[in-house]
Amino acid sequence: MTRAVHILNGPNLNLLGQREPEIYGADTLAQIEEQCQALAGELGVVLTFRQTNSEGGLVDFIHQARSEGAQIVINAAAYTHTSVAVLDALKTCDGLQVIELHLSNPHRREAFRHHSYVALAATGVIAGFGAGGYLMALRAAAG
Amino acid sequence: MTRAVHILNGPNLNLLGQREPEIYGADTLAQIEEQCQALAGELGVVLTFRQTNSEGGLVDFIHQARSEGAQIVINAAAYTHTSVAVLDALKTCDGLQVIELHLSNPHRREAFRHHSYVALAATGVIAGFGAGGYLMALRAAAG
Amino acid sequence: MTRAVHILNGPNLNLLGQREPEIYGADTLAQIEEQCQALAGELGVVLTFRQTNSEGGLVDFIHQARSEGAQIVINAAAYTHTSVAVLDALKTCDGLQVIELHLSNPHRREAFRHHSYVALAATGVIAGFGAGGYLMALRAAAG
Amino acid sequence: MTRAVHILNGPNLNLLGQREPEIYGADTLAQIEEQCQALAGELGVVLTFRQTNSEGGLVDFIHQARSEGAQIVINAAAYTHTSVAVLDALKTCDGLQVIELHLSNPHRREAFRHHSYVALAATGVIAGFGAGGYLMALRAAAG
Amino acid sequence: MTRAVHILNGPNLNLLGQREPEIYGADTLAQIEEQCQALAGELGVVLTFRQTNSEGGLVDFIHQARSEGAQIVINAAAYTHTSVAVLDALKTCDGLQVIELHLSNPHRREAFRHHSYVALAATGVIAGFGAGGYLMALRAAAG
Amino acid sequence: MTRAVHILNGPNLNLLGQREPEIYGADTLAQIEEQCQALAGELGVVLTFRQTNSEGGLVDFIHQARSEGAQIVINAAAYTHTSVAVLDALKTCDGLQVIELHLSNPHRREAFRHHSYVALAATGVIAGFGAGGYLMALRAAAG
Amino acid sequence: MTRAVHILNGPNLNLLGQREPEIYGADTLAQIEEQCQALAGELGVVLTFRQTNSEGGLVDFIHQARSEGAQIVINAAAYTHTSVAVLDALKTCDGLQVIELHLSNPHRREAFRHHSYVALAATGVIAGFGAGGYLMALRAAAG
Amino acid sequence: MTRAVHILNGPNLNLLGQREPEIYGADTLAQIEEQCQALAGELGVVLTFRQTNSEGGLVDFIHQARSEGAQIVINAAAYTHTSVAVLDALKTCDGLQVIELHLSNPHRREAFRHHSYVALAATGVIAGFGAGGYLMALRAAAG
Amino acid sequence: MTRAVHILNGPNLNLLGQREPEIYGADTLAQIEEQCQALAGELGVVLTFRQTNSEGGLVDFIHQARSEGAQIVINAAAYTHTSVAVLDALKTCDGLQVIELHLSNPHRREAFRHHSYVALAATGVIAGFGAGGYLMALRAAAG
Amino acid sequence: MTRAVHILNGPNLNLLGQREPEIYGADTLAQIEEQCQALAGELGVVLTFRQTNSEGGLVDFIHQARSEGAQIVINAAAYTHTSVAVLDALKTCDGLQVIELHLSNPHRREAFRHHSYVALAATGVIAGFGAGGYLMALRAAAG
Amino acid sequence: MTRAVHILNGPNLNLLGQREPEIYGADTLAQIEEQCQALAGELGVVLTFRQTNSEGGLVDFIHQARSEGAQIVINAAAYTHTSVAVLDALKTCDGLQVIELHLSNPHRREAFRHHSYVALAATGVIAGFGAGGYLMALRAAAG
Amino acid sequence: MTRAVHILNGPNLNLLGQREPEIYGADTLAQIEEQCQALAGELGVVLTFRQTNSEGGLVDFIHQARSEGAQIVINAAAYTHTSVAVLDALKTCDGLQVIELHLSNPHRREAFRHHSYVALAATGVIAGFGAGGYLMALRAAAG
Repeated sequence: MTRAVHILNGPNLNLLGQREPEIYGADTLAQIEEQCQALAGELGVVLTFRQTNSEGGLVDFIHQARSEGAQIVINAAAYTHTSVAVLDALKTCDGLQVIELHLSNPHRREAFRHHSYVALAATGVIAGFGAGGYLMALRAAAG
Repeated sequence: MTRAVHILNGPNLNLLGQREPEIYGADTLAQIEEQCQALAGELGVVLTFRQTNSEGGLVDFIHQARSEGAQIVINAAAYTHTSVAVLDALKTCDGLQVIELHLSNPHRREAFRHHSYVALAATGVIAGFGAGGYLMALRAAAG
Repeated sequence: MTRAVHILNGPNLNLLGQREPEIYGADTLAQIEEQCQALAGELGVVLTFRQTNSEGGLVDFIHQARSEGAQIVINAAAYTHTSVAVLDALKTCDGLQVIELHLSNPHRREAFRHHSYVALAATGVIAGFGAGGYLMALRAAAG
Repeated sequence: MTRAVHILNGPNLNLLGQREPEIYGADTLAQIEEQCQALAGELGVVLTFRQTNSEGGLVDFIHQARSEGAQIVINAAAYTHTSVAVLDALKTCDGLQVIELHLSNPHRREAFRHHSYVALAATGVIAGFGAGGYLMALRAAAG
Repeated sequence: MTRAVHILNGPNLNLLGQREPEIYGADTLAQIEEQCQALAGELGVVLTFRQTNSEGGLVDFIHQARSEGAQIVINAAAYTHTSVAVLDALKTCDGLQVIELHLSNPHRREAFRHHSYVALAATGVIAGFGAGGYLMALRAAAG
Repeated sequence: MTRAVHILNGPNLNLLGQREPEIYGADTLAQIEEQCQALAGELGVVLTFRQTNSEGGLVDFIHQARSEGAQIVINAAAYTHTSVAVLDALKTCDGLQVIELHLSNPHRREAFRHHSYVALAATGVIAGFGAGGYLMALRAAAG
Repeated sequence: MTRAVHILNGPNLNLLGQREPEIYGADTLAQIEEQCQALAGELGVVLTFRQTNSEGGLVDFIHQARSEGAQIVINAAAYTHTSVAVLDALKTCDGLQVIELHLSNPHRREAFRHHSYVALAATGVIAGFGAGGYLMALRAAAG
Repeated sequence: MTRAVHILNGPNLNLLGQREPEIYGADTLAQIEEQCQALAGELGVVLTFRQTNSEGGLVDFIHQARSEGAQIVINAAAYTHTSVAVLDALKTCDGLQVIELHLSNPHRREAFRHHSYVALAATGVIAGFGAGGYLMALRAAAG
Repeated sequence: MTRAVHILNGPNLNLLGQREPEIYGADTLAQIEEQCQALAGELGVVLTFRQTNSEGGLVDFIHQARSEGAQIVINAAAYTHTSVAVLDALKTCDGLQVIELHLSNPHRREAFRHHSYVALAATGVIAGFGAGGYLMALRAAAG
Repeated sequence: MTRAVHILNGPNLNLLGQREPEIYGADTLAQIEEQCQALAGELGVVLTFRQTNSEGGLVDFIHQARSEGAQIVINAAAYTHTSVAVLDALKTCDGLQVIELHLSNPHRREAFRHHSYVALAATGVIAGFGAGGYLMALRAAAG
Repeated sequence: MTRAVHILNGPNLNLLGQREPEIYGADTLAQIEEQCQALAGELGVVLTFRQTNSEGGLVDFIHQARSEGAQIVINAAAYTHTSVAVLDALKTCDGLQVIELHLSNPHRREAFRHHSYVALAATGVIAGFGAGGYLMALRAAAG
Repeated sequence: MTRAVHILNGPNLNLLGQREPEIYGADTLAQIEEQCQALAGELGVVLTFRQTNSEGGLVDFIHQARSEGAQIVINAAAYTHTSVAVLDALKTCDGLQVIELHLSNPHRREAFRHHSYVALAATGVIAGFGAGGYLMALRAAAG
């Protein structure tokens, strides 16, 4: 049976590589997806990789992952800190891994980034490893 | 003159019946709508019953209810606790009933569910009666 | 077997109809009891309807309801916000419904009315429907 | 070289002129746009004027303004107070003006309107001048 | 027409003169009542002077003063800081004076004595004048 | 000279043995009194053992203990956390022991049970030893 | 020996009678001084009556009262809530009465008016009696 | 009839141009006044332009503006955040515009600069436009 | 089978008898141990009695008690209020009694002594009985 | 040049495998070290693996890692939440990786575990992957 | 080149020696100045020594010190805790020493004295050495 | 009789001169001790100078100073902000000077460094003078 992993990206991550590269790195999201798809191939995992600026859109993505029984890696970006809707969506995914992912370490940034609703439903957290964190999370989700 | 009622449902309620049934009950949202439409028929009320995972979508639904002069029953789910936009939309509905509805009693859940922006605009609140609360709210909105 | 419901009223509700009618409505508590007794007759329910200004008195009423195995509808008024004793009494009522009732919506009033100890033990909440809320609560308790 | 300005409007502003006119004034958003386009013509500025009820939609609008190198005037309405996503989008606009605009003065309203995420990225703030504030902001953005 | 004043005393004031005289003075409550009755005679006022240790009892006393149309002087003692029920009772007394009285100045004592629910309904406050404050309050209530 | 001890019990303790036995144990208050009276006999102490659901009633009990010069053991239950009136009554008991007693350890329960007004006047605290704590407290009060 | 009383008035009280008369009454500060001087004459008291808009000026006034051994009545107005300097000045006045005076009851106004630095040094407080409060305070200071 | 505008400047603004020019710009206050007087001439407005380091002095300036029926533009600098006296003075100016002005955007600075007492009385707010904000405010006040 | 009890003492308790005797009593820790060993003999309990100023040392002591299956009496002194490490060590002791002990009643001291990490793992609490509390705790641990 | 990595373990981790295995897993710390040493061999990394219950001991370990120029993986356990000393030690390690490691996800546990001093100095965070997290962290530190 | 030092004293320090000598010592401010001038002579420093009760006056003093390029020693007394204006004045003094001075240790007094605005601009702090602290600060400023 | 002074240094100060020299200066702790011993010689003081990374170790050092009747200068570094144990140790030193010392001014650093437990027992505070502060403190302790 093929294993499925969904890597879900939240708001403003479409600008990756252009925005504050000293914080987020120089890789674009497309380049990161490419690296992830390559690794997914190695690992024998079917990878879905998506991005949206919409809170409701992120909820929809989570529902789709859930309906496919896929493991979830989620970089919810700003919605990490403000979205109970995303939290509630993740809490419907019993029995699946939910890996919270951040490019930088939010605890070294502004105080309002120290609280995470996603963390309340996450089985694991990976933060501060830049683009490399996507590969770490994918391995963990596939493992 | 026919009376109109809009029952508006927020994020993750499309998963009703599948998600944490010990909290939310076994009825799906479609089954609840069916019961509500049956009661609406008895009460001589034209019922619009909608769901969205999007905060902006919920704002749009409220604007439409307002433009039809419909009474509003709203189970805003997670947006109850985080959305000033939904509150502002509801505050435009002067002269209409706004009934805040919850399947469970949010005050017995996590602390971040104890605050409600919807409540600041609600004329009435019904919580903790499961699917039955929809029928109570519909009767009240129609009364 | 006859079903029993106790509707318990807290402090200052004896002044209903005289006090701030624009908030609480023009019905007196006696008139509300009359409507409730009529409905109880229809529903085949034995209704006990009581009021006290005393916190300890309210605790006593809850104990009596509990010893009769009655469902409880409680408008604890001011004690809603300050009484751990009332909360503890309600928590002894396992297996019974406890419906928290308010004439107005406390969340639209002063901040110290936003917290409810009663809610921590309530199975359901009805607020903001004026005297009509008593009938809604009675139906729910009897249902 | 033609200068570009984007005026971006958030949730519920499509109801302007209908909603609480004693707070927000009698002008509709269409009338305000008309006045702004007229002034833009005088100032030799290409003006884009948009409204959305969606948080993600507002993020998209900011990304488009950024990609055109346009100055931004933003009346984020309710999202002012709740949206880290909008803040993050605005923080990608280095080197551009970001003018926070409000029809009324939020500091004279409810406490939850006193905090602004938009302000953390704004180069300037204009509030409390009603529809006239749009023209002030446009002049400032064009200047 | 004879004017009526009720002076209402809350919990532990029955021990006046015995308890911490360096804070509360050496006069007993009976001696204070005697001085008040003498002054009431001079002022042509019918004075009711009562004490109770019960929160509900204090609510009852306020209701009785209200039903007689009497001005109220209230030293609610500990209930000053904890009783929403007393506040709600006092708020029913529109058109009457409500004078909050304390023997000592609560703001120079523990932090939990700095908040007063009574103050939210009081037309006037007199604190820190010991037994003499009763006479000042009576004059003010009668004036 | 015979020594006197008063053991005073607050709200809902009359239900002991029936209410949440996994927290409070299976002994009824009458059984506990019996054990205490037996021990009092051994210790040569005159024991008064009382219970009330009323805050004012608890204040009265403390006044009576004080007037007899009795040592006080007090399980104020819910009033522990909310009653300044009980605190003030206990503070009148200079020169007497005041032992705060709890069946369970309140610090392992809800946050609102972590604060104790009684503790501000207590010379000693015993918590978490179930019915056995009554005997420990009685020995300490008698010693 | 003649007794001295200083009545000290803080910022904006020079506008009394013109500013928000529904809160502060129609009397000007000059008219209030006139009434106070008349009463001082009756009481055989030498009255100094002063006003300043300056925090440092109010500190100077207190120092002068202190150096004359005068009793102090102080309506510090806005400085009540913000001035540690005024508090420190008042704390130098050991052995003198310090009566805190307010025309209205600050506890019924905005939250930032609920805290009083003056209260930390006041022997007595009189609030909410309008211009009449000046006469009450003068009598108390002279008594 | 000639219109009057008072532009009032608070503490440390006399050092403008010398102090942290990267935040406040290189213009001195005298240069800003010159630009404002020139614009006032164009607009047919009589402009009074003043600065003081004293809180009480700022209160006096506001009283003078009020007595002349002048519109007020106020850059209260540090007193923005600490002065209830300035707030109370501004609240006496019913029917006049009160425009709060800041050279920089206080919300991007330390947390204690995020609260504004001036804002509670301001009809409009302009912040973050440097010296240019004076001209914007003057136009608005004159308009 | 012999029962084991460990009495563990935290920082500064080695100075007992020398330090603030009006709070902590005149007994030295050696004298207290002597009394405890005598009582242990009577009770047929093997008593280990230890003190350390080190947080890690206290963790080690708890681990040793746990490995011997001993009941624990712990006066963690200052670490009561600051040590999550001690809490985590105590939480490993499932099935053992953990009795929190204090010589004085921490709730009558500074606010930072009102919170106890130890209490979150304690089955019982004894405070305020001075050296006598050690004997009470030992009896309870042995019982 | 051989690369060095230090994996540093804080209080109570010596009990791993025995303590709450449903949270922390069944592996002992020795077994985890064995797996890490094996991986270190593969990666060509010299691994130092240490544990201490002492806060000062953990500071010493960090100083030693720093003096060897080793990358640091730190599972500070309870000291994560309370130790500024550990934070200050980590902040001396400029130019080295500092990876914060937790077996479980602290954000799903008690509130006092949501704050991390370690995070303020960590370049990366890995949490919630049980013993597997050690291998992930080692790979990242070696990479 | 002669070095200049300004020692600036805030409100109520003119009463030194008279006011609470057990806290502030028996020296008058004139005596302290005398000692400081003597030391300044030895150190070859031109000393300006000033006191004011006015917040704006203290701002003026700081501006004068700044314009002379003098090092600043400031005992801002009550304004330490409340004055953003003094802080802003001190922040204009780049390149100068600013030494915060207190006679007593404010951290051992009331909680509102624990926060210092002056500290946010101070290069050094000396507190709790009484009059001797002036000499320590002068030496440091001159060094 | 020879006077004794103990200068006690807390965690991470062994790295002085290597760690963040722009904050803490370039002197090593050994160099600072050398300067202090030289000055001690001049002052005729026997100086003990010690450092430890351990909280319990710092408590031990304080006990030793106390037993020798030595004055204490303490730079507790990180334990300043977290250690009640150190505070309690210092509070046993009645009649001795306790001088709190910091190289930098903690109030200009992170918020968690603004609170000091050491300050609650310190007779004096010196901060922000770098290595020179050690000499100032030694002079004061010896004086």
